[in-house]
Amino acid sequence: MRKVYLDNAATTPIHPEVLKVMLPYLKEIYGNPLSLHDFGEEAKKGIEKARSQVANLIGASPEEIIFTSSGTESNNLALKGIAQANSKKGNHIIVSQIEHFSVLYPAKALEKAGFEVTYIPVDQYGLVDPTDIEKKIKKETILISVMFANGEIGTIEPIKEIGKIAREKGVCFHTDAVQAAGIIPIDVNETQVDLLSLSSHQFYGPKGVGALFVRKGIRILPFIEGGIQEDGKRPGTENVAGIVGLGRAAELARQELPERITYLAPLRDKLIEGLLGKIDRIILTGHPTKRLPGHVSICIEFIEGESMLMFLNMEGIAASSGSACTSRALKASHVLLATGISHETAHGSLVFSIGMKNTKEDIDYVLEVLPPIVERLRKMSPLYAKYLKVKGGI
Amino acid sequence: MRKVYLDNAATTPIHPEVLKVMLPYLKEIYGNPLSLHDFGEEAKKGIEKARSQVANLIGASPEEIIFTSSGTESNNLALKGIAQANSKKGNHIIVSQIEHFSVLYPAKALEKAGFEVTYIPVDQYGLVDPTDIEKKIKKETILISVMFANGEIGTIEPIKEIGKIAREKGVCFHTDAVQAAGIIPIDVNETQVDLLSLSSHQFYGPKGVGALFVRKGIRILPFIEGGIQEDGKRPGTENVAGIVGLGRAAELARQELPERITYLAPLRDKLIEGLLGKIDRIILTGHPTKRLPGHVSICIEFIEGESMLMFLNMEGIAASSGSACTSRALKASHVLLATGISHETAHGSLVFSIGMKNTKEDIDYVLEVLPPIVERLRKMSPLYAKYLKVKGGI
Repeated sequence: MRKVYLDNAATTPIHPEVLKVMLPYLKEIYGNPLSLHDFGEEAKKGIEKARSQVANLIGASPEEIIFTSSGTESNNLALKGIAQANSKKGNHIIVSQIEHFSVLYPAKALEKAGFEVTYIPVDQYGLVDPTDIEKKIKKETILISVMFANGEIGTIEPIKEIGKIAREKGVCFHTDAVQAAGIIPIDVNETQVDLLSLSSHQFYGPKGVGALFVRKGIRILPFIEGGIQEDGKRPGTENVAGIVGLGRAAELARQELPERITYLAPLRDKLIEGLLGKIDRIILTGHPTKRLPGHVSICIEFIEGESMLMFLNMEGIAASSGSACTSRALKASHVLLATGISHETAHGSLVFSIGMKNTKEDIDYVLEVLPPIVERLRKMSPLYAKYLKVKGGI
Repeated sequence: MRKVYLDNAATTPIHPEVLKVMLPYLKEIYGNPLSLHDFGEEAKKGIEKARSQVANLIGASPEEIIFTSSGTESNNLALKGIAQANSKKGNHIIVSQIEHFSVLYPAKALEKAGFEVTYIPVDQYGLVDPTDIEKKIKKETILISVMFANGEIGTIEPIKEIGKIAREKGVCFHTDAVQAAGIIPIDVNETQVDLLSLSSHQFYGPKGVGALFVRKGIRILPFIEGGIQEDGKRPGTENVAGIVGLGRAAELARQELPERITYLAPLRDKLIEGLLGKIDRIILTGHPTKRLPGHVSICIEFIEGESMLMFLNMEGIAASSGSACTSRALKASHVLLATGISHETAHGSLVFSIGMKNTKEDIDYVLEVLPPIVERLRKMSPLYAKYLKVKGGI
């Protein structure tokens, strides 16, 4: 059977060039980077090279990069690390309503611990309005956290505008760029962000490694303690091979970004156009143009996203319904709800995230396979009568 | 030049069988374990198999295993997770003085947060006396944390005896088994431990992955938040290849443990005997018999451990001075000081940790190379006059 992987927002395959540079670190270069001998030194060199490569991807300096185990950990470290380091300065944090749970849950934990958190709404396209943030900033505000791009609806947020406001007001600005770093161009100076989370496996690097950019001069406190690795901010023996892989993935992304976007965007547009043309009662979620280059998100009414995923899977197509992290939770996406989509419609959510391994033929295959699945499932749905009524069939 | 790696307590090379099972997960099995399709399902299966393999190594059930990114993270999760979950029950924690910093620093952080921490001393061999612990338990005690074995001096602690006391008193018992798991036999039921930390790269698995055993019924709170992975206790996209590697490493360790010990212990004893015979003013640190099978730790008086490491490195020998995590910190080991060794002597610490790749010839090589290095360095040392005096040479 044809296998079509269209879940690149959940994770991507490792680029062969990335695996190639990882392999020596899984074999002969096995020293502990902290050790005072050649075996350790070699491992340390690999890490420091990767640090430069990751820094280069986002216009940072190597010493501003902290390696972590995931984007989730980076987000936790950013929120908790800033909150802990600045608790005497203020206790107010601003986040958007459509952040990933690895930002929202730490925010909630901080609320419990006495912080005040303001949740900024989004418009129908999932866009944050920077002026909404500006209005909410007060003297107690120590952190603004708004994601660079949303993995469920693909919307790219106005980070540069928010960064400008944050800088003017002297508030620390974190962006969860897990869905954006390595996918679209990012420059931490142009956008004036102070902290930025990224994850290796989102752009053809290995799983189990992420990074947090922390601008020089910004103080954070670690929440894992007990060693001097990563300048004491993130101790624990390093995932050397993973970090080396992230470095190479970052380097490749930086080099190939324009071509990747040029390759992905037309596939995305073809899929969006095809789906909207072939299926009725379908809604494009997220922004029509301010959108990640390979990201297609839709809601199909009178149908369950989970059922569609199962049927697509039977045809060899891997897609998602919302974020990977909520897919097994089977709850209506907080992101879709925040854009004003109803609970009922939100359940018919589908995300196709296109990657560099996908082809035009993959898109054609989805456009061939999905419409009959939709038809079939709608007939089986308890909502079928309602659908027919809406459609005017009765 | 001959290369002799004798720093296996800092990290071990990946076993070829381990790398073999990891590779498919770095290539074609790239799905996100949370995803609702075959790509995700395959990845999930890999993780669940590894969970069973790790559980088997220590006599636990698979659902009692939480995967983390390192032993350091496991220790942090154990201490902070238990403290947070039981803060209403009590605020007293007992740890030994010779714990790894990834236990001691979280303990200090908890002290700052209002917990009371009792630090249990050790004898000259680095042994904790279980009755010391028993005496310190009070009704507010919510956790005892004593390491299974110490990486700097190789001493194996009386975990079974401490476990018995903890169980009788109804106090939760955590052991940092990072230096012991996969190296010596461990059974969580026989030892009655409630939480146990382990690290993959200590026993021929990959770096960047660890595990925490949490006995069924013991509640811990996560400190990384924002996803449903690892039952919500440790969210973030899993390091699938790393976890699969840890699983296989655990399986191999379980199968080969008796032979590994039979192989390593004679090499250890040969090295200890040779060093004590060939170098004067030398002290074996740690316990003479209750000792990790490949672990040799000594202090050579009137000399700096760091200098010896450099000179050994020039001869192709990789060793350590204390733990990997303190090696670049250049401070006298808190472990050695706790055993009653003076600051001055502690600075002459050397650790040779033997692994499965080492041979009898490696040991011979060290015994040939080290004594002249010691002689040479002593002559260059500001302590040389003192040494001669002690030796009776003047």
